Amino acid sequence: MESLQNSAEEQQYIFYKDNPWPNKQESTNNYKPGVSGFVLVHAGAGYHSESKAKEYKHVCKRACQQAVDQLKAGALAVEAVAAALVELEDSPFTNAGMGSNINLSGQIECDASIMDGKSLHYGAVGAISGIKNPVLVANRLLSEAQKGKLSAGRIPPCFLVGRGAHDWAVSHGVPACPSEKMATKFSLSAYKRNKRKMELAEKMDPGHNQTKKRRQSSRNENGSECLDTVGAIVVDMQGNVAAAVSSGGLAMKHPGRVGQAAHYGCGCWAENACNMNSYSTAVSTSGCGEHLIRTMLARECSAAMQSEDAHQALLDAMQNKFISSPFLASEDRVLGGVIVLRCCKCVEPQPSTNVKGCLVEFLWSHTTESMCVGYMSAQDSKAKTHISRLPPGTVPGQSLAIEGGVCRLTSAVD
Amino acid sequence: MESLQNSAEEQQYIFYKDNPWPNKQESTNNYKPGVSGFVLVHAGAGYHSESKAKEYKHVCKRACQQAVDQLKAGALAVEAVAAALVELEDSPFTNAGMGSNINLSGQIECDASIMDGKSLHYGAVGAISGIKNPVLVANRLLSEAQKGKLSAGRIPPCFLVGRGAHDWAVSHGVPACPSEKMATKFSLSAYKRNKRKMELAEKMDPGHNQTKKRRQSSRNENGSECLDTVGAIVVDMQGNVAAAVSSGGLAMKHPGRVGQAAHYGCGCWAENACNMNSYSTAVSTSGCGEHLIRTMLARECSAAMQSEDAHQALLDAMQNKFISSPFLASEDRVLGGVIVLRCCKCVEPQPSTNVKGCLVEFLWSHTTESMCVGYMSAQDSKAKTHISRLPPGTVPGQSLAIEGGVCRLTSAVD
Repeated sequence: MESLQNSAEEQQYIFYKDNPWPNKQESTNNYKPGVSGFVLVHAGAGYHSESKAKEYKHVCKRACQQAVDQLKAGALAVEAVAAALVELEDSPFTNAGMGSNINLSGQIECDASIMDGKSLHYGAVGAISGIKNPVLVANRLLSEAQKGKLSAGRIPPCFLVGRGAHDWAVSHGVPACPSEKMATKFSLSAYKRNKRKMELAEKMDPGHNQTKKRRQSSRNENGSECLDTVGAIVVDMQGNVAAAVSSGGLAMKHPGRVGQAAHYGCGCWAENACNMNSYSTAVSTSGCGEHLIRTMLARECSAAMQSEDAHQALLDAMQNKFISSPFLASEDRVLGGVIVLRCCKCVEPQPSTNVKGCLVEFLWSHTTESMCVGYMSAQDSKAKTHISRLPPGTVPGQSLAIEGGVCRLTSAVD
Repeated sequence: MESLQNSAEEQQYIFYKDNPWPNKQESTNNYKPGVSGFVLVHAGAGYHSESKAKEYKHVCKRACQQAVDQLKAGALAVEAVAAALVELEDSPFTNAGMGSNINLSGQIECDASIMDGKSLHYGAVGAISGIKNPVLVANRLLSEAQKGKLSAGRIPPCFLVGRGAHDWAVSHGVPACPSEKMATKFSLSAYKRNKRKMELAEKMDPGHNQTKKRRQSSRNENGSECLDTVGAIVVDMQGNVAAAVSSGGLAMKHPGRVGQAAHYGCGCWAENACNMNSYSTAVSTSGCGEHLIRTMLARECSAAMQSEDAHQALLDAMQNKFISSPFLASEDRVLGGVIVLRCCKCVEPQPSTNVKGCLVEFLWSHTTESMCVGYMSAQDSKAKTHISRLPPGTVPGQSLAIEGGVCRLTSAVD
């Protein structure tokens, strides 16, 4: 990360790997009035091998670029975040959309959700098959709900699952995609490998002592191999925030299983600043869906971000509300990761009537072995990417990594 | 309600329809050492006609009795709450299980969830068809998850939807039921009536001005007719709490639509007292699913219950976190109801080594026209039921009713 500070282009970022978190006043003032905005994406918290690092970074870079292109075209945060997600879903390397994990029945079922911090509306799909970009269905649900009631006073849905979600998507113009086209060489070989592993585990202990069998096998498993849920968070030039997340779910999951990516408050969260909240916040999570659901991690991290010190607040939230959460007391390893951002209007050191400024603090933290992130401001020429790893010698699921930066955005006021 | 205070049997309850909420010290001391516990159920927040009032009260009475029978047999709160739900689901008058609302495609799809305040585990099913008692699937998911990991280190699911949920249920011994047997004369005639209403609304304005059409039709609709989601909350003799909820969802909903009854933190919540929380709390909600999801009403009410004054805390939560919630700023009418209980070990005025006491405060509140509730302690010979209605002249969705009581439980210590 230190090398990032050497490039002139990256002067607007300040990074601290360790405490103390940079004082806001220390941020550089790299004024480039014009279109503004910022995006932070993740290609999952899990395990990213060195051999695939390049691919993960590439897709994060492209996703950031898609969001920034939208921001430059004047799109709101919610549209920019959806554009980033489409790019992440389309990558065969991520566990979302194309190349998603295959379930116990050999099918692909995806979860996705999106939240708009401005309207506080939310859309989600769970266990949806045959749609290349689940996030587009979630986004369409969100925008349809904003139009008000349906005929005969019916309330529009915010969460659809399964076949019903697929049919709604197609009837609303979201293109279908044959499920077999969504499987990749990689996802198919992972499925075969996992199936053999499962059969072997069950053959080794075909007895009826279920509890014993379960505990035994769980000790031998890493389980964090394929948790590559993707997500993104965006702040636009008007200071609106949005968040989205998309996932193919756990490998060999039971058909119909829905993970945190479709769960309100668990997969993503976005809330513009208001009377009660000084900061606009956006969060997207990744990892083991059940752990993220039961701790409502996205919403917890968003709430924590209203504290004075963002770095300390996220550290505390990850430690107390996730790793040591009473809701996961029975779990030996708690696997997940988050990306968060918060922003507030800031007082300019050189006040000007036609320039408005916004201070963005952004962080990522994970208890999995690694997490791949990318970020970019609308004023950057290209995205920065990073694979964060747990400190050597620490135990996944029991320890955490936390990093981030500060970025000052400025834009011309018409 | 006042008449309830006349019977000797009901001396252990103190009711206040209005502020101030009874001071804990004022509760009577009706010592009946033995098996202890308490259940509060609801047959939905919506509109309950006088003509059907008797049926609604009856089913609440039977549901309470089922829970108390379980408590007397030594069951934990989570089993007792599931037993109450089965009774509520089996009634053809409630919108849950048998007699559920029929969706746009003429099918029944149910949502249900259950939470155990002791283990903090949770199970849920969404848009499930062909299962008479969805709560039993949710309960089975909860108990399976407590057993630990599946073979090959797989994490057991806490939330299943659609066909996958149905197949999992059947493979785990939950009996299937042909969907056509779950429709009742009442639900079928409501479906036909709603379908005609929808067709008429769409015929009256076949134009392309969707937004206009929607707003127009929503003004003419009441919409609160069929929100009879059911639920229950229980505290057992050991002071454990549990909560559950079950629903057929909104009438004429889109297939695959999942409401609050399957949504973690939205449909039900239960949390035993711990280092951080002085009170054990349990909550179950009813009403418009989308409103209850976006406000996470169950969890919000549970958190509020840690305040000193339970009545004031629930009043504030319903007003600030529901009716005036920033998450529902665009809604003209916010429809929902909750039942809540909290309990704490209490100091006995006549200390005894072989009697332990527990003070239970229980309340219900709703913004819908009415809400039907029932409650019973294990020491009562029968349940009490009540149809709460909004004060005359107030507007559903903008005003609220709140009532409740206090009950002191005592049980012998072995």
